[in-house]
Amino acid sequence: MLAHVAPLVTWLGQAGFRLEAGGRRILIDPFFDPDFPGREYPPEPVEGCDWLLITHEHVDHLDPVGVPLIAERSPGMTVVAPEPLRAQVAALAPGVAFTGVRPGDPLELPGAGTLHTVPAIHAVEVADGYSDGARDGSAPRFVGFVLELDGVTIYHAGDTIVTRELVDALGALRVDVALLPVNGRTYYREQAGLVGNMGFRDAVALAVEAGATTLVPVHWDLFAGNSERPGATADEAWATDAPLHVLVLRRGLPWAAAPAPRPATP
Amino acid sequence: MLAHVAPLVTWLGQAGFRLEAGGRRILIDPFFDPDFPGREYPPEPVEGCDWLLITHEHVDHLDPVGVPLIAERSPGMTVVAPEPLRAQVAALAPGVAFTGVRPGDPLELPGAGTLHTVPAIHAVEVADGYSDGARDGSAPRFVGFVLELDGVTIYHAGDTIVTRELVDALGALRVDVALLPVNGRTYYREQAGLVGNMGFRDAVALAVEAGATTLVPVHWDLFAGNSERPGATADEAWATDAPLHVLVLRRGLPWAAAPAPRPATP
Amino acid sequence: MLAHVAPLVTWLGQAGFRLEAGGRRILIDPFFDPDFPGREYPPEPVEGCDWLLITHEHVDHLDPVGVPLIAERSPGMTVVAPEPLRAQVAALAPGVAFTGVRPGDPLELPGAGTLHTVPAIHAVEVADGYSDGARDGSAPRFVGFVLELDGVTIYHAGDTIVTRELVDALGALRVDVALLPVNGRTYYREQAGLVGNMGFRDAVALAVEAGATTLVPVHWDLFAGNSERPGATADEAWATDAPLHVLVLRRGLPWAAAPAPRPATP
Repeated sequence: MLAHVAPLVTWLGQAGFRLEAGGRRILIDPFFDPDFPGREYPPEPVEGCDWLLITHEHVDHLDPVGVPLIAERSPGMTVVAPEPLRAQVAALAPGVAFTGVRPGDPLELPGAGTLHTVPAIHAVEVADGYSDGARDGSAPRFVGFVLELDGVTIYHAGDTIVTRELVDALGALRVDVALLPVNGRTYYREQAGLVGNMGFRDAVALAVEAGATTLVPVHWDLFAGNSERPGATADEAWATDAPLHVLVLRRGLPWAAAPAPRPATP
Repeated sequence: MLAHVAPLVTWLGQAGFRLEAGGRRILIDPFFDPDFPGREYPPEPVEGCDWLLITHEHVDHLDPVGVPLIAERSPGMTVVAPEPLRAQVAALAPGVAFTGVRPGDPLELPGAGTLHTVPAIHAVEVADGYSDGARDGSAPRFVGFVLELDGVTIYHAGDTIVTRELVDALGALRVDVALLPVNGRTYYREQAGLVGNMGFRDAVALAVEAGATTLVPVHWDLFAGNSERPGATADEAWATDAPLHVLVLRRGLPWAAAPAPRPATP
Repeated sequence: MLAHVAPLVTWLGQAGFRLEAGGRRILIDPFFDPDFPGREYPPEPVEGCDWLLITHEHVDHLDPVGVPLIAERSPGMTVVAPEPLRAQVAALAPGVAFTGVRPGDPLELPGAGTLHTVPAIHAVEVADGYSDGARDGSAPRFVGFVLELDGVTIYHAGDTIVTRELVDALGALRVDVALLPVNGRTYYREQAGLVGNMGFRDAVALAVEAGATTLVPVHWDLFAGNSERPGATADEAWATDAPLHVLVLRRGLPWAAAPAPRPATP
């Protein structure tokens, strides 16, 4: 077995990821649900987790069944989430270390790399309207994460539409791999209570603007009535001549996100 | 040659249509542009027009080159458009009859059928925000049209997103054929100055809610960077088990929109 | 209720159709199967059938459960099928009239119109190889049908790949509406025992060569592992600038196939 010189990225479905770097293990928004075939809770990928990163409180991101299970199987783990989620996380995983974050905070993940928190513009309920979720001076409740791991910078957007604020925050970082939701936002889905995200068109344009070389579409595979065709993102990148790879990951199969040279920017 | 017992529907590209019923000819939002191959101004389909219907003032709907040409070749023609467009139309086609409409007005088209005006929610400029365009008590500047012709009810949406107001207005009519924009609305297109429309997902759901049996996707074929895949609407109808046919029309080729029996509704 | 002046075309799923013209009712390859949700045997669409047309012996075309049921509910019905299927049909529907056909035979359907039989190139088993199925001087076992009904010419291809022989046979007829399989033919599906058909690319090109103005993709919706995306045909027609409409029918919902004027051919 070779030592891995590249961070390993394993998609868990929806917005869930396991990242491995420097012998450390990071989970982001893992979600499992026995009601969905193939989404039953698998023990292995969520054991021995060092950091559990949560972007926001929706159940497919902050999994009320999964978080206690992961905590139990990951002694010494730290949960990293928006500050307003502190109480919800404590209720699910009592006694587990919690680091509340807000956009702008860089955080060292010792042995693994560096974590930057960036904005996400979403809503708890459709009626709330799209915002960062900050209420009465609290920190935002929705965030995204940018991880610098072994020379590769990976952006996990959480759930968000595109705004100028988000574009600006990403501009300061040098994203290589963008993990972006592509399920979109429509009138009828909002009428059904589904808060939307960027769709595949905005995802491609955002990845280009952020300078990513690889775009991984996520958040398209799970809920009937809130999904997207996996090839839609690749079609759009081609149609718009976007200078990036589109990678449709297989759930559960690790991908080594090794650094590659970039073309010189003019 | 058989006499036509069904209204003939000919798509002219983008949102442009020619309708023929009862020996009368109706144009809706015809747009031609020699800068686009295959869109050069064709003399034939726009001659002898009885009514020229315009949904709003954007150039791909109120064509500043086309309107004078059509008027010149259509003696006795009447332009039907939102009331606030009266001066713009008069400047393009001086002396041509003009009927200003607003949502709710039914209008007889003698010999052809009946025209209903319904709301459209759009914007002249992105910065205006989405609305019906009414300013200072004026009538709305954006509309859609519902035409009852030879037993078939055809809805031309103009440019619009979906709102409850639109759904309610359509509920009073019994639409058979829905001609709906599917190009969608995204952050980056709005940044580029492109006011959006419903996308194919909302188009399918709206057509179903309006009780249409045939959905024709339009407004997907012209401008690079503001288009859609023609098959996307058919894929979505299948994915959502929508009880309607999806018809992707060929530009310039007439289609006879004959009435068919509907299944009994429970 | 208006009298229908256009033939009514109702897709039953897979390659199954009900055609109604001149007060007569024609079924082609109806297939129902309670193992598939929504495909349970519905009594209504298969009652009072005047002609039951069968293109070949595969169960999704010659339905061993359906044929006796249809015969029982359709006194005086005639089965029209390739001559070599005579015994199989007699076993399923003893005493029912049978007309054996082979390509080239025109057949009057009194009160409805005219039926032409055209070649189909398929196989009973993959190992047989693709052919018209004629054995030892017998008539072909695979056919397609072209029906002239109320001024509209409708081509039902059965299961077939495209060959010069088929193109030539269609050249003599003036097809308006082409009902073509689009599920394609692949090595691995053949390894799984699935005899293939033309795919959506050949379907578009064949429809164009046959001069059709409307292409309806069929045989894409039923068997997992032998299906196709419904929008693929519309995408292909657009990509190749094919001069025809693409209509994705909703199963069970009648469509009135009224004749429309064709552009003059140069």
